[in-house]
Amino acid sequence: MSARNATCAIVGAGDFIGSAIAKKFAAEGYTVFVGRRTAEKLEPLKREIEAAGGRCEARALDARKEDEISAFLQAADAHAPLEVVIANPGANVNFPILETTERVFFKVWEMACKAGFLTGREAARIMLKHGKGSIFFTGATASLRGGSGYAAFASAKAGLRAVAQAMARELGPQNIHVAHLVIDAGVDTAFVRDRIAQARGAEAAANLPPDVLMEPASIANAYWALHQQSRDAWTFEMDLRPFGEKW
Amino acid sequence: MSARNATCAIVGAGDFIGSAIAKKFAAEGYTVFVGRRTAEKLEPLKREIEAAGGRCEARALDARKEDEISAFLQAADAHAPLEVVIANPGANVNFPILETTERVFFKVWEMACKAGFLTGREAARIMLKHGKGSIFFTGATASLRGGSGYAAFASAKAGLRAVAQAMARELGPQNIHVAHLVIDAGVDTAFVRDRIAQARGAEAAANLPPDVLMEPASIANAYWALHQQSRDAWTFEMDLRPFGEKW
Amino acid sequence: MSARNATCAIVGAGDFIGSAIAKKFAAEGYTVFVGRRTAEKLEPLKREIEAAGGRCEARALDARKEDEISAFLQAADAHAPLEVVIANPGANVNFPILETTERVFFKVWEMACKAGFLTGREAARIMLKHGKGSIFFTGATASLRGGSGYAAFASAKAGLRAVAQAMARELGPQNIHVAHLVIDAGVDTAFVRDRIAQARGAEAAANLPPDVLMEPASIANAYWALHQQSRDAWTFEMDLRPFGEKW
Amino acid sequence: MSARNATCAIVGAGDFIGSAIAKKFAAEGYTVFVGRRTAEKLEPLKREIEAAGGRCEARALDARKEDEISAFLQAADAHAPLEVVIANPGANVNFPILETTERVFFKVWEMACKAGFLTGREAARIMLKHGKGSIFFTGATASLRGGSGYAAFASAKAGLRAVAQAMARELGPQNIHVAHLVIDAGVDTAFVRDRIAQARGAEAAANLPPDVLMEPASIANAYWALHQQSRDAWTFEMDLRPFGEKW
Repeated sequence: MSARNATCAIVGAGDFIGSAIAKKFAAEGYTVFVGRRTAEKLEPLKREIEAAGGRCEARALDARKEDEISAFLQAADAHAPLEVVIANPGANVNFPILETTERVFFKVWEMACKAGFLTGREAARIMLKHGKGSIFFTGATASLRGGSGYAAFASAKAGLRAVAQAMARELGPQNIHVAHLVIDAGVDTAFVRDRIAQARGAEAAANLPPDVLMEPASIANAYWALHQQSRDAWTFEMDLRPFGEKW
Repeated sequence: MSARNATCAIVGAGDFIGSAIAKKFAAEGYTVFVGRRTAEKLEPLKREIEAAGGRCEARALDARKEDEISAFLQAADAHAPLEVVIANPGANVNFPILETTERVFFKVWEMACKAGFLTGREAARIMLKHGKGSIFFTGATASLRGGSGYAAFASAKAGLRAVAQAMARELGPQNIHVAHLVIDAGVDTAFVRDRIAQARGAEAAANLPPDVLMEPASIANAYWALHQQSRDAWTFEMDLRPFGEKW
Repeated sequence: MSARNATCAIVGAGDFIGSAIAKKFAAEGYTVFVGRRTAEKLEPLKREIEAAGGRCEARALDARKEDEISAFLQAADAHAPLEVVIANPGANVNFPILETTERVFFKVWEMACKAGFLTGREAARIMLKHGKGSIFFTGATASLRGGSGYAAFASAKAGLRAVAQAMARELGPQNIHVAHLVIDAGVDTAFVRDRIAQARGAEAAANLPPDVLMEPASIANAYWALHQQSRDAWTFEMDLRPFGEKW
Repeated sequence: MSARNATCAIVGAGDFIGSAIAKKFAAEGYTVFVGRRTAEKLEPLKREIEAAGGRCEARALDARKEDEISAFLQAADAHAPLEVVIANPGANVNFPILETTERVFFKVWEMACKAGFLTGREAARIMLKHGKGSIFFTGATASLRGGSGYAAFASAKAGLRAVAQAMARELGPQNIHVAHLVIDAGVDTAFVRDRIAQARGAEAAANLPPDVLMEPASIANAYWALHQQSRDAWTFEMDLRPFGEKW
């Protein structure tokens, strides 16, 4: 790995997809800035990246706060030119419509849509000065489909996708690559294995065949592939799902 | 017209689409409850409906407030069973991404998405008791496409469409017809004629050929046609545009 | 019913949707021209329409043959101005990909796509002379989604939808209303009840709850509603499914 | 480059995208089998690949003929296990609807849809024996949108996309990666520069800014990236367009 004089910032660096993206871009030589609500939870990620010879800055970040996002991205850019920003917010909930409170509807939107908008806009503000950059948004099945019980989550994710489209159309001609990845299945996380255990029993969850769930590292590779595209052939949207997934 | 023992409530009864829907359903015998921010602005509509022999109740209503929506719909249902609810929120704005403030993004979402969610949910709460009803949402081109400059508006409208989808899937089997109409062009309003005058000159705006813009009454007919569908063949989504429109 | 000096032609007037559309437009005063492969099979329909006071011309018609479609529509137009044409081709098959022969792929395309194209084009040729008309295409779930086993059928239906879109964009500004209806569920036919009987047993099929399947007459109403739209607010596409359908 | 014991077959190896894909996979060590109507036209490609140290077999191939496609792919598989097949048919035409003859409609479908279906099916037949493989289809803007004048082309491309979807859903769980790439803009070819010269003048066409058109090599990279995906995170569809493209 040769170090680059460039940063990659990940807003919403959870244990799975966000962490995997951080490791991938660090392995490719970027200094990665990772932000999530509780900074301590980022320590294992930071240690793992540094142990592998990479560079990582971990910051407490409430992605719903405009000034925190702005400061986070500016700190990254002060360190080295901000070249890649990943908006990776999460807030998957399922409630029957009558039990979807206004509070839930707002909170899910704030985390899964507004935070992404703020991240994209503040990233654009910095990257337009550099005349280049990549801004990638993490989408989900719900970005494309409002399933029963998903009024809050699908609304936020569809709203985020529209933000990504509007930004891509405005910023593409200014040399900023905006893309939206539709993660259309379960990622291999403790949470997903738990749900499988509840639905199909603990043994089934423990003995899943290989490649039935997505590895975060495989998803990270897709972000990397997008960032490698030359600008004469940029992708706005791609879907990702395991080979055996019904869709 | 024979009067029906049923109410139709319109949340966001603006001068054009909302008013036209009110007149159509009043003409079909419904007592229409119309709500908008400033109750006085509803007086001409009320007078017109009543002059035509219809029944209309006009109420001040801030559609962003859960308790106001709930009270508005309950008042309608107390008058006569609530059979039709139209969520017709509006908040079309266009800003470059860097000028889309957090405040604008929030306000547009609150009016064009959250208000629709609250309206739909509170309508469902009442209609589920009756075991039937129609809940129709007004969409726009931006519901399907995030154009440059439309990050806020398209995000809110795409989010509202996802709410409508989730509600349709959950409530359809409970005999509530949820639908989403995509109004994919300009409606014949002072605002739209103004924009045409700015773009193409006053004379062009004054002398538009017939049927180039949509008449609110024609749109209202589409809502009525949906409400007339028997439940073995319900439509979730339909688009509407003038015959000469490019799309 | 008052008779109109206008014809409605239905290409692919099968026992269910096509027949129901014929009855609806006949009841509204149109002379309906109905065509299908075997003219004798149209006799009951013709008798039923005439018994109700309507007018019906039944013709043998191979919809895959350009000259037959052209002659059929010209005969209708010679009788009275051709105002409505319904392209209602059917060819639903399901095969694993390796068992989808070239012959099947071609035949399904010919019936479900090419016949619709020829019907639409020949209808347009006549209607452009009159300066108006409606051309409606019957679509299916497969028009939007290529499910496993549906390579041939979905390919043909997606191809037909693209024809409808291209025609709508070209012909709308010339005052011809082109629309595409997505019939997204089972219609109440002997064939569908048979499949249900095979899947869930004869008793289940015999005792289906009401409105679980679509009545052809309800679908016909949707075609009629489209034809009633004024040209300042035309619909290109609408979906239809029963209230309880999963989608 | 280290040679692999595997073949990549390209059906419809035109001068641009198909050739670029051939060069890319040859550079990655595959023996590439390239087929097009006139075998002589493949000679420069073969020489270029071989000059670079790669291996290439060029064959005359009429992709509309089932037996020719089957023989072509079996020859590749006899050489070394067939691992990648690219269906890259082309037949872009634009005619007003009334001038779209049945012959044109059929020919475009045969080249742009049926040939792709046959290619995919015969590829699957071989790959299912190996238990793995990649089958990628080249799509276009018209795959998603039937524009005015594109009834024939859009119908064929939408039909091909449906084939790809059906195959992906059936074959994914059998470890065959089926994907569809939407090439949503002009590729840098003599044909496209010609059209620009006609529309904007010869000087404009000669002095296009960099990266306004897509380089075939950039498109080839996207195919390669898809083939590199691990099966726990496969993409079915991605779009490609230049940074400055309006969409």
